[in-house]
Amino acid sequence: MRLTQGLCRAFQVNPRGIATIEGDRRRTWQQVMERVGRLSTGLGGLGAQPGDRVAVLAHNSDAFFETYFAILWSGGIIVPLNTRLARAELAFQLQDAGVGILMFGQEFAQLAAELKSSLGSVLRCVGMDAPGSAADYSTEALIAAHAPASEKVRLNSDLAGIFYTGGTTGMPKGVMLSHANLASMAVNLIMSTKIDETCVNLHSAPMFHLADIGTFMTTMVAGTHVFARRLDEQIMLELIERHRVTHCFTVPAVIDRMARHPRAPHTDLSSLKLLGYGGAPMPTGTYEVARAVFPKVDFVQGFGSTEMAAHTFLGPQYHRPGADPEKLKSAGQTCFGYELRVVGPDGLDLPPRQVGEIIGRGDNVMQGYWNRPEETAKALRDGWLHTQDAGYLDEQGFVYITDRLKDMIISGGENVYSIEVENAVSRHPAVHECTVIGVPDAKWGERVHAIAVLKEGQSLDLEALRNFCRESIAGYKLPKSLEIRKTLLPRSPAGKVLKRELREPYWAGHTRSI
Amino acid sequence: MRLTQGLCRAFQVNPRGIATIEGDRRRTWQQVMERVGRLSTGLGGLGAQPGDRVAVLAHNSDAFFETYFAILWSGGIIVPLNTRLARAELAFQLQDAGVGILMFGQEFAQLAAELKSSLGSVLRCVGMDAPGSAADYSTEALIAAHAPASEKVRLNSDLAGIFYTGGTTGMPKGVMLSHANLASMAVNLIMSTKIDETCVNLHSAPMFHLADIGTFMTTMVAGTHVFARRLDEQIMLELIERHRVTHCFTVPAVIDRMARHPRAPHTDLSSLKLLGYGGAPMPTGTYEVARAVFPKVDFVQGFGSTEMAAHTFLGPQYHRPGADPEKLKSAGQTCFGYELRVVGPDGLDLPPRQVGEIIGRGDNVMQGYWNRPEETAKALRDGWLHTQDAGYLDEQGFVYITDRLKDMIISGGENVYSIEVENAVSRHPAVHECTVIGVPDAKWGERVHAIAVLKEGQSLDLEALRNFCRESIAGYKLPKSLEIRKTLLPRSPAGKVLKRELREPYWAGHTRSI
Repeated sequence: MRLTQGLCRAFQVNPRGIATIEGDRRRTWQQVMERVGRLSTGLGGLGAQPGDRVAVLAHNSDAFFETYFAILWSGGIIVPLNTRLARAELAFQLQDAGVGILMFGQEFAQLAAELKSSLGSVLRCVGMDAPGSAADYSTEALIAAHAPASEKVRLNSDLAGIFYTGGTTGMPKGVMLSHANLASMAVNLIMSTKIDETCVNLHSAPMFHLADIGTFMTTMVAGTHVFARRLDEQIMLELIERHRVTHCFTVPAVIDRMARHPRAPHTDLSSLKLLGYGGAPMPTGTYEVARAVFPKVDFVQGFGSTEMAAHTFLGPQYHRPGADPEKLKSAGQTCFGYELRVVGPDGLDLPPRQVGEIIGRGDNVMQGYWNRPEETAKALRDGWLHTQDAGYLDEQGFVYITDRLKDMIISGGENVYSIEVENAVSRHPAVHECTVIGVPDAKWGERVHAIAVLKEGQSLDLEALRNFCRESIAGYKLPKSLEIRKTLLPRSPAGKVLKRELREPYWAGHTRSI
Repeated sequence: MRLTQGLCRAFQVNPRGIATIEGDRRRTWQQVMERVGRLSTGLGGLGAQPGDRVAVLAHNSDAFFETYFAILWSGGIIVPLNTRLARAELAFQLQDAGVGILMFGQEFAQLAAELKSSLGSVLRCVGMDAPGSAADYSTEALIAAHAPASEKVRLNSDLAGIFYTGGTTGMPKGVMLSHANLASMAVNLIMSTKIDETCVNLHSAPMFHLADIGTFMTTMVAGTHVFARRLDEQIMLELIERHRVTHCFTVPAVIDRMARHPRAPHTDLSSLKLLGYGGAPMPTGTYEVARAVFPKVDFVQGFGSTEMAAHTFLGPQYHRPGADPEKLKSAGQTCFGYELRVVGPDGLDLPPRQVGEIIGRGDNVMQGYWNRPEETAKALRDGWLHTQDAGYLDEQGFVYITDRLKDMIISGGENVYSIEVENAVSRHPAVHECTVIGVPDAKWGERVHAIAVLKEGQSLDLEALRNFCRESIAGYKLPKSLEIRKTLLPRSPAGKVLKRELREPYWAGHTRSI
């Protein structure tokens, strides 16, 4: 299936239905279809050919949504950029993907101008909404000036997007996802959540991230998207009440903050049917508060990765009072269309409750890493994606994640790959050696914690380290605490830092929410 | 997606759940998985290679279900045979598809023996259950003698089945459906019907026909299949009560008979959630009776063809009291994953409410007709299947079928292609020229009606004609009434018989259920 088929269908079966809401602006599926077709022609006029990479740097908005589909409609490959990254990180991704056109929201006009000047004339900038000075073109002008184009996607296997993800090797890798990959994710989530055209989906996760699963599934059922450029728990509560939101997919920390917000009891949340979350099981405390505040809302969990989208699903029945509390600690069962196994180092299946590597297969599994044949071959073997996550299955196929082999820290719903932070910290002239781990944090779930051994006679404090690292990595990746060690880091015989040992004292009495 | 992935998942997430029920026999997903794997090894031992065609001739049963998946598991292509066909028709299909192995239910042992002797040693016969004398092998012996094999399917695009369908040219054509095609049908129906692992599906339509949509969708959600070799409305009511059936997909005529059955009011039907139907909109009379007898049951309609599986869907909300009665006459809207258009002879889209040819695109669309490149090229153009059905769309994308260009008669839920009957009738020595039309019938919806002009001095009655035709076509295709005309048939300037004109007097005061 192609993602564009979902848009065509939404236009056919619900032309006068509300497709997008942002603030006071509402557009029908007919209007969105028309605008997408026109913008697609406009992009073609800028020379964008099928297969070209087009980046988007923007907060969630209806304009982002239309731009997303216009790129796809013209056969292009979207490269959604993480808005929180440092300029150097963004420049790397633009160059790595060979991006020729950058579409940006007005709130990123300054950053777009900087990127353009650092990358030179190869990059053309298209401003979404009101164009800033950095814009060579603007989407509104392109939409006004062109007639709708016909769709240029040919095959289900045509690439739809390149999504960058941190990696164990330190440099982010571009995950290649085809139309079939992303459509499969949408289809599996529709089967699991049972949404239909009555769905009003509040986009809580950032649209540049696969965690914002609503973009395709809500379109496929011809439902309604609600966007806001700036979101916090109070705004979310207001939007749910104002637009009669039925579905919202987010992270446990946000559900927690919504549930504990003083306005929650005074907000009309009667429209809300389902709160989905991913990235981590729901902490028991959050679960209890959320159940009390949202007694009629179903909770569901999805688990996956950029390489393998939402692969497992923990349904509402396992979140209801009386359900087996054990299951609530799992990441659910394999989605209807996929396969998941837990294997030992020899690649053979392990019996239930024995920990091994989690591997997955299905139409959601990426085509590979962009221009990284070796890492692709390592990750994809015989069609199976090797996740580098450790876990086990129980007797009913529920999967429990026990460790992230990739040493990923999940802080406030964002994935932080420790290697990226370690690379930045280790470049500080005072640092002899360092490591980065996640430690429990009341606000962030986990926080990024740096442990450094300094060169003789040197000194370093957290503030100085953060200022130094800010040049090369995003703000949310910066260490939030620093520990200076006098002795060298403990290492395995093979020379690998024993992170588990370093983490232990911090995690005593806590359950690591993996 | 491969159909076998659904089986693997069902085994993983619901191993102790009941997979199949037939009479007093129940098997869990673990048992079914085990038996499928063993039977697959056994078929391999008989020399069946991936890509080989294996036919099945059987009534609905758990054995049919296991055989279905064993053929797929070994990479084979299933050729499900219509149990009501005449021997000559079956022999044609076996030869046309190049079938090497015929699996048959014990109730067809005699027919299998006849087919074997007419086709010679190329055909090996495997008896399902207790093998009859025709069996070279039996499934139970193969299951007992072998260990489970690993799956041999490689790609989503691997062929899964060849489904024969009558054609405008008189000879049945084998519709090639891949794993992806059939999985797509299942996925779209799961999204539309919102079934999950609690689904208990009574197989009402014959499993050799695509109308039995439950085989794959129920497996994919790890639900429960209920089979019966012999079914009538009373048995269906009994099975629903006994096995707490939740879902049943059938035809309006069967729903009508169930609803009017004297036992219905005394049967516990409280488990039933959904009655699906296809092949025709539900006649108003049936709808009213069914609503009264099954007040809490949702009704849904699917529309498609062998070439394009279930392509549109009319949801439960359009069957509820107060819904727009106009929509109930439609075949619903395009399923989530597909596209549907109504085009004129120039191939361009027609505006709403203008009648043209219905064309469809999606992962459900067949790969083509087996060994019929010319007919494939005619039916499939640029990925669009040309259905030869005429109809129109309304402003919300509901499709209304106004005529079947293929001159198909739907009698008791079976599709009868008039050309096949005409071929048989015209071979009678007394017949000068003939045509076959569908006329309204209280019991069958439509009945097969032959109109013949005889050679001079000849006579013919219905009984004699039926006996003559029985040699070459299935019983359900035989004319149920005969009209002898003294004058030649009315024809168009191009020489085409004007069936519409012949049908008119019969249909006055009736709505043709298309």
